[in-house]
Amino acid sequence: MATIKDSVHDHIEIEGVAEALLDTPTVQRLRHIKQLGTVQLVYPSANHTRFEHSLGVYHLANRACSEIGIEGRQAERIRAAALLHDVGHGPFSHNIEELTHRYTGKYHDDVDELLTSGEVGEILRDHDLDPGHIAGLVAGEGQFGQLVSGELDVDRMDYLVRDAHHTGVPYGTIDTERLIRELTFVDGELVLDAGNVQTAESLLLARALMNPTVYMHPVARISKAMLRRATERLIEETALDAERIRRMDDHDLLVALRNTPETEAFAERYGSRRLLKRAVWAELQHVPDSLLEAEHREIRELESTIAERAELPATDVIVEIPDEPTIRESTTRVVVGGEIRNLGAQSPLVSALRTAQRGQWRLGVYTQPEATDRVGRLAADELGLDPPDGLIRKRGGGVHATLDEFE
Amino acid sequence: MATIKDSVHDHIEIEGVAEALLDTPTVQRLRHIKQLGTVQLVYPSANHTRFEHSLGVYHLANRACSEIGIEGRQAERIRAAALLHDVGHGPFSHNIEELTHRYTGKYHDDVDELLTSGEVGEILRDHDLDPGHIAGLVAGEGQFGQLVSGELDVDRMDYLVRDAHHTGVPYGTIDTERLIRELTFVDGELVLDAGNVQTAESLLLARALMNPTVYMHPVARISKAMLRRATERLIEETALDAERIRRMDDHDLLVALRNTPETEAFAERYGSRRLLKRAVWAELQHVPDSLLEAEHREIRELESTIAERAELPATDVIVEIPDEPTIRESTTRVVVGGEIRNLGAQSPLVSALRTAQRGQWRLGVYTQPEATDRVGRLAADELGLDPPDGLIRKRGGGVHATLDEFE
Amino acid sequence: MATIKDSVHDHIEIEGVAEALLDTPTVQRLRHIKQLGTVQLVYPSANHTRFEHSLGVYHLANRACSEIGIEGRQAERIRAAALLHDVGHGPFSHNIEELTHRYTGKYHDDVDELLTSGEVGEILRDHDLDPGHIAGLVAGEGQFGQLVSGELDVDRMDYLVRDAHHTGVPYGTIDTERLIRELTFVDGELVLDAGNVQTAESLLLARALMNPTVYMHPVARISKAMLRRATERLIEETALDAERIRRMDDHDLLVALRNTPETEAFAERYGSRRLLKRAVWAELQHVPDSLLEAEHREIRELESTIAERAELPATDVIVEIPDEPTIRESTTRVVVGGEIRNLGAQSPLVSALRTAQRGQWRLGVYTQPEATDRVGRLAADELGLDPPDGLIRKRGGGVHATLDEFE
Amino acid sequence: MATIKDSVHDHIEIEGVAEALLDTPTVQRLRHIKQLGTVQLVYPSANHTRFEHSLGVYHLANRACSEIGIEGRQAERIRAAALLHDVGHGPFSHNIEELTHRYTGKYHDDVDELLTSGEVGEILRDHDLDPGHIAGLVAGEGQFGQLVSGELDVDRMDYLVRDAHHTGVPYGTIDTERLIRELTFVDGELVLDAGNVQTAESLLLARALMNPTVYMHPVARISKAMLRRATERLIEETALDAERIRRMDDHDLLVALRNTPETEAFAERYGSRRLLKRAVWAELQHVPDSLLEAEHREIRELESTIAERAELPATDVIVEIPDEPTIRESTTRVVVGGEIRNLGAQSPLVSALRTAQRGQWRLGVYTQPEATDRVGRLAADELGLDPPDGLIRKRGGGVHATLDEFE
Repeated sequence: MATIKDSVHDHIEIEGVAEALLDTPTVQRLRHIKQLGTVQLVYPSANHTRFEHSLGVYHLANRACSEIGIEGRQAERIRAAALLHDVGHGPFSHNIEELTHRYTGKYHDDVDELLTSGEVGEILRDHDLDPGHIAGLVAGEGQFGQLVSGELDVDRMDYLVRDAHHTGVPYGTIDTERLIRELTFVDGELVLDAGNVQTAESLLLARALMNPTVYMHPVARISKAMLRRATERLIEETALDAERIRRMDDHDLLVALRNTPETEAFAERYGSRRLLKRAVWAELQHVPDSLLEAEHREIRELESTIAERAELPATDVIVEIPDEPTIRESTTRVVVGGEIRNLGAQSPLVSALRTAQRGQWRLGVYTQPEATDRVGRLAADELGLDPPDGLIRKRGGGVHATLDEFE
Repeated sequence: MATIKDSVHDHIEIEGVAEALLDTPTVQRLRHIKQLGTVQLVYPSANHTRFEHSLGVYHLANRACSEIGIEGRQAERIRAAALLHDVGHGPFSHNIEELTHRYTGKYHDDVDELLTSGEVGEILRDHDLDPGHIAGLVAGEGQFGQLVSGELDVDRMDYLVRDAHHTGVPYGTIDTERLIRELTFVDGELVLDAGNVQTAESLLLARALMNPTVYMHPVARISKAMLRRATERLIEETALDAERIRRMDDHDLLVALRNTPETEAFAERYGSRRLLKRAVWAELQHVPDSLLEAEHREIRELESTIAERAELPATDVIVEIPDEPTIRESTTRVVVGGEIRNLGAQSPLVSALRTAQRGQWRLGVYTQPEATDRVGRLAADELGLDPPDGLIRKRGGGVHATLDEFE
Repeated sequence: MATIKDSVHDHIEIEGVAEALLDTPTVQRLRHIKQLGTVQLVYPSANHTRFEHSLGVYHLANRACSEIGIEGRQAERIRAAALLHDVGHGPFSHNIEELTHRYTGKYHDDVDELLTSGEVGEILRDHDLDPGHIAGLVAGEGQFGQLVSGELDVDRMDYLVRDAHHTGVPYGTIDTERLIRELTFVDGELVLDAGNVQTAESLLLARALMNPTVYMHPVARISKAMLRRATERLIEETALDAERIRRMDDHDLLVALRNTPETEAFAERYGSRRLLKRAVWAELQHVPDSLLEAEHREIRELESTIAERAELPATDVIVEIPDEPTIRESTTRVVVGGEIRNLGAQSPLVSALRTAQRGQWRLGVYTQPEATDRVGRLAADELGLDPPDGLIRKRGGGVHATLDEFE
Repeated sequence: MATIKDSVHDHIEIEGVAEALLDTPTVQRLRHIKQLGTVQLVYPSANHTRFEHSLGVYHLANRACSEIGIEGRQAERIRAAALLHDVGHGPFSHNIEELTHRYTGKYHDDVDELLTSGEVGEILRDHDLDPGHIAGLVAGEGQFGQLVSGELDVDRMDYLVRDAHHTGVPYGTIDTERLIRELTFVDGELVLDAGNVQTAESLLLARALMNPTVYMHPVARISKAMLRRATERLIEETALDAERIRRMDDHDLLVALRNTPETEAFAERYGSRRLLKRAVWAELQHVPDSLLEAEHREIRELESTIAERAELPATDVIVEIPDEPTIRESTTRVVVGGEIRNLGAQSPLVSALRTAQRGQWRLGVYTQPEATDRVGRLAADELGLDPPDGLIRKRGGGVHATLDEFE
């Protein structure tokens, strides 16, 4: 048994297959991937990694098994899946996931290959565990996959408190033990036991507050968009392909960006935190549907056109169109009055949050600080934003403005 | 200058009029009044007092003055009001406030008399402060009264984090410094500066989660209702009047209840935590309007009738009808797009929370554990609750059930 | 099973005999006894009680049993003893223990009578546990008594972190889980496993820093000495005897002191925090041996003489002579190089701390603020303190001065 | 003014010259240098960087200036020095400092060149500050240099609490505010005010406990020694020189080690945490003086000889001989009885800690796990360790064993 000291859960004990998996390159690699990628540029203490998060998820999975009464091989499977659930992450976690997905068709939870091959595959088979089954759990399949990836998964329980601890933003401080203790299976569905509508709401609200403050902070969004464009260039202009980039860690990618002439300028901006600035910050209602549905290629072309009209290098204009917000927690199941109900049906907060998040949604156009006015006008014109005036927003100027004290 | 170490805000510095006020009996008395009264029976660590809370409110008021730029005598007034804002509390804080109000017409923030007379009055006048003016600030009057008592007051900012620290329930953990830094006055109104809709929501949500989990926890409600009835008896049956009880501290009241034959039984129950149990736990929609509007005397008579029919002593049946929930924070003002807006108009969460809180509302009938079935049926009949079946609820059985793990 | 939320250990689960014992008056009474008595006058947040501490000790005892592998009835005995270990405390915990001991010959860990009689006795016997045996464990008897009361007991592990949490003084923040995990029995002795000399030292050092800063803070000492004298008067002048006072809680004693004419003056001083002040603060080397060995009666006479010469009421002069410091942790056993060794033999810190604590030792003479000079001179003369000049010390003037920022 | 949220000190405000310095490459580079280097392999959450630490030191320097009453240009200088005090750190902070010093003659606090040249130099001069003077403060020169680098510097105050927060080891949790408030200058010397012998001791003790548990943890030492040897090889075998390596960040160095054939094997071991193990762990008294005084070259030769005799590659044997421990805090100055005294003269703990630290000192010889026995015997022979038997130690086997639960 190994004992590891964690800043969030204190002593974590690891045994069985998880202990054997711990010192594989596949798992150790997570030590070198920041949990929150470029959020570090907003919250300087947010340097925690996928490795410690994976230990935390393992720990909570283990606690959940013991509270629910899952034992033996089934528990071993869940614990293995918990420890391995993030090994598919590329450098900077989610930051460039959309990009590599476009090339490889794979998201971070598509870990079949990583779990089947190499040392990890051997260890799993040595412990009589089927790598394919574990990969299924990581992807949220089957009854027990809900514990690893689902509305009530231990992944979220760990990252909210961990991100709060490391950013210093208290909103993520949920009552993890309470949640773990109230988990139960009813007819194969993972639910919160009776008396826990507020427990479920607390999870939902923690995410709702962490979202604009941390995960979608404007500066994090800008730096993420810059990183994504630079990495795209790396794929387009060098021999590095998306498959290889996906398996890099933060060090490899950063150094590759520094050492490649085509991305050097980005690396320099990034290294001295001279980020692009918002030229447009437009609400959902002002964005034409066609733009929301535009393909990546089209958006790249729009960027080029705007840059050309503004007489800027193509790399200096980024148009970022986030997905429309969804509230995954709306299908969280809670036992109420002896029946299983969806939180969305039970709590008026779910639809209110849906409305709030649509209100917080923003299309962003980013460019050099000196060119925000010019690019803003041109982008509004090219993108068909309506009404074009008032789009170039100052700090906090939006209707549901985000918490962006920390620029 | 005095420096005091606080478990929430670390070192608190007190100077000027506040330092002089500190060692008066009026302020020191708050050391002996628990912040959360009988909540201690649910959360055993919740023994913090109005004294340390008052220091915390003083500290935050001081921080707010310095952030907003309020100085000199005006700041002295606000600091004095902050330190004194709770001196009007009776024993067990809010627990018996409604009762003493019925007899005296006074709530805890009616401190005119306490501030004008005695040592406190002298000290205020010695520092050229008008006691009546300070009492006005405590009551929330005038522009600066908003800082001491209002939707964005420092009172709430302190109690949420302090109650979280001492109960162990993390939901109250707001970002106090963020709130203080974003306060500003616009046209005489205390508002949060632009970019702070979520900051305002975080305050609202913290209260919304602390409410059912801590402040309105069923066991806290039952013990509070019991304490209120026993204290009422004390007033009715002994020479102690409400005015005198209001000036007691927790020790005085508890010992009086122990030493009075008519309340001895309560004191014994309380001392061994053998509390009454829920016989009825009814939702708002099942309670007739006439009952919601009934006067205290009528409710007491209903209790007597139910007890009589159940062949129990009158003291063993309590009918508790909470006020209908209000969301004071709905009028929190935030600057959005250059204008001052009410949070209620701005955030869809406000009306969702209003709905949620109406769903959490419960009328309670409490009695001896052995008699809950019998009393439940009789009470439903007497109170005209509709539908009478299904009213006698088990733990967590309500539609929007409360977080009552800790019985 | 009951689950209780604790501000220090989060969720605490209580089952078996401990759950049955929980709602007895004997255990519930601890809710009304402050852990640190008058320390609250220095650290206003230090209002935690023996009840929550007892839950914490129960929790750690349970953890220790499970780490060491103690099960079944033996574990039940230890858990019962842990929950009950403080039921013998009188009001204000240790503050008046020396006084009641003088009259009754009993210390707080002499709980034989309390465990044998009443509800507690019944419950223990119903669970096939021998009350006498449990009382023995509380007194530290036998192999397993070491877990409840000894150099490595869980009592200390709880109170250090709890006192740190509630005072805000960080020095007590030890690594409780580390300690629990490293406990083991070797030849019937409770020891820390190999590799833990520093773990043992950390416990020792935490106490060494909490001692002058919290437990022996000058203002805490003065208020404790005042409380002790006032309570002594209560015993001498009223019908209340020491045996009855020992069974009171904080409320009873405070109200008795308020309502008794002979102690009213103390109650008033205490209630407005108008404490006596130091007239003499003398180091060990300046105090004659005869005074160190003087009996209580003699010290009382010296007080009277000094008061008389100073023309003050006898109640206004207190001479306090603490016991000479001992470092109980010096006999903490640690496995080193395969052998059990005493920490005192192993760590040079133990004897250094012994020297430091002798250096911190102070005899105190306390009196009215206006009379400190006069009383200081007279006391030095009467007590034979050498050299008499320089004894009347100002804040922090001692050689190993104590941390007394918080006056 | 910029406001930054820190996980340790909450909101940090930066203005003046410090704000201008913030976004320079020189300061931003610190975002990519881990505060504790390879300690991350023992405590997985220890990923905090020199950047956030520098912000913390800036914040405490600012607090200290305001408590002491230092204003204007003098305060600006101190704040600039605080923010810049670590810009001279190479990759992995102290881990390879000794190595680069051997080649360049420079330690991390030799920042003259960095502060004089480039953007930093410009900004300093623009704010009328002399870069050389600031570099002097960083090196601890002059009266105010004591605040930045000295026994009572704010550097230590920040790193102890920050390292505790991020490792989860509570021993570093000192009372920062208390320390800051008690700092004062007497005759140009930075001292703690009267009444603070324990405050000074608390700082000393926090370091004494963090040292073996965190900073000198055996696994941290081994990985550090491995990193150092690998980097040495990089200098010897490639075109990279020490001067250039010193200016790298963690990413650059790690990727260079990965991509260089001669250091690939190290990078692989490091990446999968397959570290060397202890073959010898010898106490000070068993190590011949000649070895303690041996030059680096001689030790390298001894390594080669041992490896050769053990038929291992030269890279697989590392002999690590730490410096003899010193207690810098022994010269901490505290006001006692109106005079300035050295803590070493005042507190018996200082010399006890000196003894304890000599007892904790260990020479280490590290090699492949399979070869520890063989290499242990050969190394004892070659190094002249006396007595050679018993040197090959198992976990925790030393006399003053270290806290090495976390292997």
